[in-house]
Amino acid sequence: MASGVDPYREIYSRRTEQMSGSEIRALFSVLERPEIVSLAGGNTYTDAVAGRVAECVQAVLARASGVALQYGPGTGLLGLRERLCDLMALEGIDADPHHVVVTDGAQQGLELIAKVFVDPGDVILTEAPTYVGALSAFSSYQVNARSVPIDEEGLIPEELARTIIDLHGEGRRAKFLYMVPTFQNPSGVTLTPSRRAEILEVCRRSDLLIIEDNPYAQVRFSGDPVTPLRALAPDQVVYLGTLSKVFSPGIRIGWVLAPQPIRERLVLAKEAANLCTAPFNQMVAEEYLSSGSTEEDLQIVRKVYRERCQAMLDAIDRHLPREVVVRPPEGGLFVWVTVTDPLNTRDMLARALRGGVAYVPGTAFYPVKTDGKQSMRLNFSYPSIEQIEEGVERLGRVLDEELELGRSLGI
Amino acid sequence: MASGVDPYREIYSRRTEQMSGSEIRALFSVLERPEIVSLAGGNTYTDAVAGRVAECVQAVLARASGVALQYGPGTGLLGLRERLCDLMALEGIDADPHHVVVTDGAQQGLELIAKVFVDPGDVILTEAPTYVGALSAFSSYQVNARSVPIDEEGLIPEELARTIIDLHGEGRRAKFLYMVPTFQNPSGVTLTPSRRAEILEVCRRSDLLIIEDNPYAQVRFSGDPVTPLRALAPDQVVYLGTLSKVFSPGIRIGWVLAPQPIRERLVLAKEAANLCTAPFNQMVAEEYLSSGSTEEDLQIVRKVYRERCQAMLDAIDRHLPREVVVRPPEGGLFVWVTVTDPLNTRDMLARALRGGVAYVPGTAFYPVKTDGKQSMRLNFSYPSIEQIEEGVERLGRVLDEELELGRSLGI
Repeated sequence: MASGVDPYREIYSRRTEQMSGSEIRALFSVLERPEIVSLAGGNTYTDAVAGRVAECVQAVLARASGVALQYGPGTGLLGLRERLCDLMALEGIDADPHHVVVTDGAQQGLELIAKVFVDPGDVILTEAPTYVGALSAFSSYQVNARSVPIDEEGLIPEELARTIIDLHGEGRRAKFLYMVPTFQNPSGVTLTPSRRAEILEVCRRSDLLIIEDNPYAQVRFSGDPVTPLRALAPDQVVYLGTLSKVFSPGIRIGWVLAPQPIRERLVLAKEAANLCTAPFNQMVAEEYLSSGSTEEDLQIVRKVYRERCQAMLDAIDRHLPREVVVRPPEGGLFVWVTVTDPLNTRDMLARALRGGVAYVPGTAFYPVKTDGKQSMRLNFSYPSIEQIEEGVERLGRVLDEELELGRSLGI
Repeated sequence: MASGVDPYREIYSRRTEQMSGSEIRALFSVLERPEIVSLAGGNTYTDAVAGRVAECVQAVLARASGVALQYGPGTGLLGLRERLCDLMALEGIDADPHHVVVTDGAQQGLELIAKVFVDPGDVILTEAPTYVGALSAFSSYQVNARSVPIDEEGLIPEELARTIIDLHGEGRRAKFLYMVPTFQNPSGVTLTPSRRAEILEVCRRSDLLIIEDNPYAQVRFSGDPVTPLRALAPDQVVYLGTLSKVFSPGIRIGWVLAPQPIRERLVLAKEAANLCTAPFNQMVAEEYLSSGSTEEDLQIVRKVYRERCQAMLDAIDRHLPREVVVRPPEGGLFVWVTVTDPLNTRDMLARALRGGVAYVPGTAFYPVKTDGKQSMRLNFSYPSIEQIEEGVERLGRVLDEELELGRSLGI
């Protein structure tokens, strides 16, 4: 066997050709280097809940270690599903615990949805840009992802309608439309109420199922709440939620709320995937949601995010060149920065790392990797205000040099 | 829309046609009914570790709550992977932590392996009978599972060789051979050392990758240790382990040890599936394995299983009819009971439940559901000695009636 040749190459599935690491996951090791200020990840502020986790664990082990330490049902534990329905009720969603399946974060929900709906080559629709983890999950089932552009009001209904007509012309039909309608990752944009009605109407007419991914539901820190799509059209929407943003990512609790026949298939897929989400973690999450302190913790988290987001916007104003466009988000974890001059943020990343700052290049968030070159996603939920100031200042120096170089080369 | 018709039926993937719930998972709700003695599940004895879990959680939250509560790398945390290599070293396996990926129990390892290797219609080989969860994971990737019979020494090398030749004659090649060589689930059989050498030789000649699932590695309670296949032929084997049987199923920690190019693909599949196994749980597991009490706890678990297994064999001797054949296992969680007279244990299950006892019918463990009709899998790890005695006595009454009925009808 020649050195360097993979001896197993003949037996991999064809899907492995479409599987690639997300650019965010590739940056993971960088986050641990002390000399770099990382604005790249999606880590959350967990100081507010660290103490609560310890209390919840104690309570669970004292109350029901027998259940917590054993296998559990593939659906998830009923007690947790009931509390998750309470949480969704705060958003105006009327949900039955028997239509919920507990997952390992919302990421597993995306994977199970792909597994239940996608055959190789099937078309699905996504926003452009969109969540990179969704692209990874869907790609691993060999989808043909078509993207529909967003603007400052969210997904553009006319573009969606046009894409559906184009597909129809090809004799094809999309399996579903994947959306993050509120504080979209990466753009921070929230789909406006009137657009919500329009998108639902377009999808209703075309019998197109919507996957509504709503990880930031509880982390609005300014502006008025907007009703989720699921609350407006239960039969048209599969809804994904997570406790990663409000409790802890490291506990890995998410869920899918789906019409009953879809939920049945998701449960079968879930059991094949990993039998059940850790009952221990489910009970800790249930304990937390039952403790009555959730709203209090959320107020702390929202205050921290409001301050950090503002610190980032102020730092951008001070340190980034005027060729930068930013839309202040009303919630979520990210600021999406676009440079109006020609620039390749993906190429620039290596220089930024040498300059002591990390971000996620915009290209990571598009199915077609030539799009998004002039954009960057910056995270404000994890770094401190001092780190945000320092990181954005470093980014400003890198951007200045990059734009200067571009101008001097006449690009 | 007609009532009862699934409005989403046109958009499911073709794979959903092959996805069905395992018969064990379907019995899950039954386990909670107090009037039934369940010998059906695979729950383990966790009393020995319940106190340790509380200690480990405290230690983790005190030491590194910042890491435990955040996202982690898709590979799993290095500290845990190092401890898992120590655990494998006890079996004679020389493993590099960089060839390990941490999974949500071994079940997720099976799913990721299917994802990385299987295109629809691909042939894989399994033992007959085999672990039902593996069949679920593989079926969800539309495999064509061919089974190779086992006898009291484990998989029969001549049958394996013949199956490979048959496939070759059809112009096909199996993607891998899936095995549980030690305390096989469900049969309890351990592949003998001489058979191990023969199976490895057959596979080497045919360039057939082996998936060695070894969940019961640490729960041998009699007889001499047998070297795992992975220790004998590192390049030919992908090895799966789990902490479910020795620490806690509810913590959901398993792992895959694979040659480097395969491991790389498994990590990509893992990240698409659920980003990472809960770092909180990984750190609790690492803490447990580092605590120095593992061997002591294992001694307790082994002692409990030895006693319960013996209690079950004694009860079978006393209460089951003479038409029953049992092979005493040297480890694991199950006794496999086969009735020599014609009988359908799947049909009999409803009557057994009415008679107050649950088991898993043998048919669950065969790709072809007409096989295994005369067998049952009985679990001794979870029920107490009193419950084992009561459950087997009840089963005896049901079996007596069933065989009597069969004889009176001249079947």
